[in-house]
Amino acid sequence: MKLANLEVNGNSHLGVCINDSIIDVTKALANEQRTDLPTSMMDYINADDHTQHAFQDYVTTLSKTNPAKVAESEVTFGPVVPHPEKIICVGLNYRKHADETNSPYPEVPILFNKFNNTLTGHNHNVVVPNVTKELDYEVELAIVIGQTASQVSEDEALNYVLGYATANDLSARDLQLRTPQWLLGKTLDDFNPIGPYLVTKDEVPDPQQLALTTTVNGKTRQDSNTSDMIFTCKEIIRYISQHFTLKPGDIILTGTPEGVAMGMPETEREYLKSGDTVTVSIEKLGSCTTRFI
Amino acid sequence: MKLANLEVNGNSHLGVCINDSIIDVTKALANEQRTDLPTSMMDYINADDHTQHAFQDYVTTLSKTNPAKVAESEVTFGPVVPHPEKIICVGLNYRKHADETNSPYPEVPILFNKFNNTLTGHNHNVVVPNVTKELDYEVELAIVIGQTASQVSEDEALNYVLGYATANDLSARDLQLRTPQWLLGKTLDDFNPIGPYLVTKDEVPDPQQLALTTTVNGKTRQDSNTSDMIFTCKEIIRYISQHFTLKPGDIILTGTPEGVAMGMPETEREYLKSGDTVTVSIEKLGSCTTRFI
Repeated sequence: MKLANLEVNGNSHLGVCINDSIIDVTKALANEQRTDLPTSMMDYINADDHTQHAFQDYVTTLSKTNPAKVAESEVTFGPVVPHPEKIICVGLNYRKHADETNSPYPEVPILFNKFNNTLTGHNHNVVVPNVTKELDYEVELAIVIGQTASQVSEDEALNYVLGYATANDLSARDLQLRTPQWLLGKTLDDFNPIGPYLVTKDEVPDPQQLALTTTVNGKTRQDSNTSDMIFTCKEIIRYISQHFTLKPGDIILTGTPEGVAMGMPETEREYLKSGDTVTVSIEKLGSCTTRFI
Repeated sequence: MKLANLEVNGNSHLGVCINDSIIDVTKALANEQRTDLPTSMMDYINADDHTQHAFQDYVTTLSKTNPAKVAESEVTFGPVVPHPEKIICVGLNYRKHADETNSPYPEVPILFNKFNNTLTGHNHNVVVPNVTKELDYEVELAIVIGQTASQVSEDEALNYVLGYATANDLSARDLQLRTPQWLLGKTLDDFNPIGPYLVTKDEVPDPQQLALTTTVNGKTRQDSNTSDMIFTCKEIIRYISQHFTLKPGDIILTGTPEGVAMGMPETEREYLKSGDTVTVSIEKLGSCTTRFI
């Protein structure tokens, strides 16, 4: 399924995308006065297996009965997970990105974070903060955790995944590097556009074989594949879960490939500015567009 | 007020401490079938000024009518804020602690974080994780934010505070320093005992004049005063709010003074081990004890 967190009159509705159209499942359930199925993304994430399967069956029915659908362009997407307990980021996790920043390949995953104030959806405007002169983009494969994971092995790690999403790990490089800790430059308001969809893992047989790109005003800046990751999704989940507990809804941003503005020769370096439109795209997951104002 | 987040039969109750006794306000309200006042810490934090004042009036009444009180030793304390959006930590923020770690005084606050999996209460057992050999304590003054704060000045910064609490920023030094990013060593499960009380700011006229100590098995290890902070509470709030938005319930851990195990000469260094009891205490706020198992 391609699930979406829809913003409808100030409320969070659970949507699903079928053939490029969106069904507002929350509305469909209300129309039928059904109360046994999740009506928001957080409800879905926290539902048990049985309820998630029942939801999937209901979606299958909906796609056949063909209720009122709306075009993608007509809905407002929120961040795919509005209230995760954690947003964990992995630094320098693509070989060619480590190369472009003159960094050695890390021997263990470098973990840092963003807070929930960064979460925003596909097709939103983001204000260029006046505290940075070096605003950069980073396309990243986001893992969304589905089950509590502690001390899991690499072999079983992907069983704990609910699905995947396209994310943009926006970064203020001057703030990121002002102190040894990267947090400040990573957690400005709206610095994590994520979506449009949370694509359940059954539709992503191999998360290490996904093309991913960034365009700025239509021009390609990043163009790589998750196969270039130094630590794979299952290695990252194993490593984190060895140290602390992952919870349903937790987001892991798995690093960005080469092509960021910071990696360009200094004279050609083009950081983001008001008026720019950035689209990050990942194969099977969709494109997340942000307009900077 | 000294507010507490009480764990009662798996539910979060809102408690208040009056003369060393705890009143379970949630229970008192239920007995009176009142539904107009907050019944949990998160409800209180998110309530408007009017409701918070009405709550305070109710507590005053309660203290006079003298309903069933229980001794501190008979209640189970949860973390003072169970679900903050952020736990922001300030690194190297006491002069003598910077000295003991051979670090220069930072020119701007060094920000990093812990996740909510770290939150636990006073008097809880914490398992010594098998992934670290260097478990350290850090007494810290915790600020709890009361109102959304963006771009606030230093003069008005403390108006955005709801109150303060005693916290222990537990740290696995080997994991903290394994990569340049400290997060991993800071966010193991239960690594943030905080409480027992959220003391509202009216009881803390000057947060820069509070004695704070740590004892390990009764022996004093840290003994300082918040007057040794490099960046004061109001400077920290101003700085953060210049960069990103603080929300009600957000916790800021303002750094630790000298006396941590890492700061001892290598031959005398005593990291924490199973069987140890650690108590962190701050003047006016109370003592938070953790037993390691």
